[in-house]
Amino acid sequence: MAITLYELVGRDAARPFSPHCWKVRMALRHKGLDFQCATAGFTEIPGLEGGYSKIVPILKDGETLVADSFAIAEYLEDTYPDRPSLFGGEGGRALSRFVESWSQRTIHPALARLAVLDIHDILGEADQAYFRESREKAFGATLEAFVADRAERVAPFLKTLEPLRAIVGRQPFLCGESPLFADYIVFGAFQWARVSSPFQFLPQDDPVALWFERCLALHEGEGAKVPAAA
Amino acid sequence: MAITLYELVGRDAARPFSPHCWKVRMALRHKGLDFQCATAGFTEIPGLEGGYSKIVPILKDGETLVADSFAIAEYLEDTYPDRPSLFGGEGGRALSRFVESWSQRTIHPALARLAVLDIHDILGEADQAYFRESREKAFGATLEAFVADRAERVAPFLKTLEPLRAIVGRQPFLCGESPLFADYIVFGAFQWARVSSPFQFLPQDDPVALWFERCLALHEGEGAKVPAAA
Repeated sequence: MAITLYELVGRDAARPFSPHCWKVRMALRHKGLDFQCATAGFTEIPGLEGGYSKIVPILKDGETLVADSFAIAEYLEDTYPDRPSLFGGEGGRALSRFVESWSQRTIHPALARLAVLDIHDILGEADQAYFRESREKAFGATLEAFVADRAERVAPFLKTLEPLRAIVGRQPFLCGESPLFADYIVFGAFQWARVSSPFQFLPQDDPVALWFERCLALHEGEGAKVPAAA
Repeated sequence: MAITLYELVGRDAARPFSPHCWKVRMALRHKGLDFQCATAGFTEIPGLEGGYSKIVPILKDGETLVADSFAIAEYLEDTYPDRPSLFGGEGGRALSRFVESWSQRTIHPALARLAVLDIHDILGEADQAYFRESREKAFGATLEAFVADRAERVAPFLKTLEPLRAIVGRQPFLCGESPLFADYIVFGAFQWARVSSPFQFLPQDDPVALWFERCLALHEGEGAKVPAAA
């Protein structure tokens, strides 16, 4: 059966940037499943698959539709149990939720304060208007003001990565010698920044940067196929 | 074979307070293993089992000695595989390390800034001298100065618990419907503060406080058997 992954893009359909869509793309490669990608801008999502979901990623597997990156990972794990595991058992599945929770509450808000204006700038015109209005309302600030002091935010942000740094400084991946979905969860966040923003914040010799490079090389360089923003 | 757990205590041998020893005590109960506890003050540790380890917990299982809480959990998991799992598979084992890394780098330093003087005060005389000298050297401050502004530190600390709060606010334990070792890792930190310091910092209706209460009730109230510091 054909699998389609709907991903979020800006003006350039060859540059998917959503962290959540990247988690799923890596999960599909991890499972060794063939899939095709389809793209949508923010304002096109409600028109996908008859209005199935307000968010991407959406996975279509034959006649089955699943939205939300973690739900999709669980779907893939349960539907294709004979392929390489994404969780490494029930404990890993449960704690992948904690990694998601940590990533969403530590890395995502910090990266938004570095990259949100750059994200805006890569969007199509209709998406830019939607994005600016919704984000400025949520932040209570203009996008420009929200990122104005980003240079000073880097050092404290790097400090919050210490729990991850301590792990990937002593082993190749968050989940050990090889990656599991929890690696892709955190990878997705950094890939979001890499694809959407030229702003550099990770020192090249930071163990987190070295781990991210290892993730970019996974699955025949799936993540590296999309060049970094310049 | 008899199992002995060496735990850290202050003047009151009935009040073990080390976070790492609590992790192991809970792990032993989780596995349903019989064990006896032996106690030591900080300065007595080097004399245990012929100088086996500079740190507790030390587990003695028959003729086997193991130190370090995570190593002990792994030992128990591998030695008693037919008893309830502490990790729920290899993915859970790997990500328990991330929970440990997060707890050690987020919760432990914050709790030290709230409770370190109280910890000093419950120690025996020789341990007090050792503890004050080693900690003041590490902190670059007197214990009194280190906790002087603890009231103002509570709100930012509570904010750093958000990744945990989001999880235990929607399910009973960090690892799902029932606890695994990752729950005990974080429980150990809060139990350390509860047993050693009367300083209250967790609002009673905080989902983290409610999760901690659930942990205290586990295994016939193992954690609650030692009353909170007053």
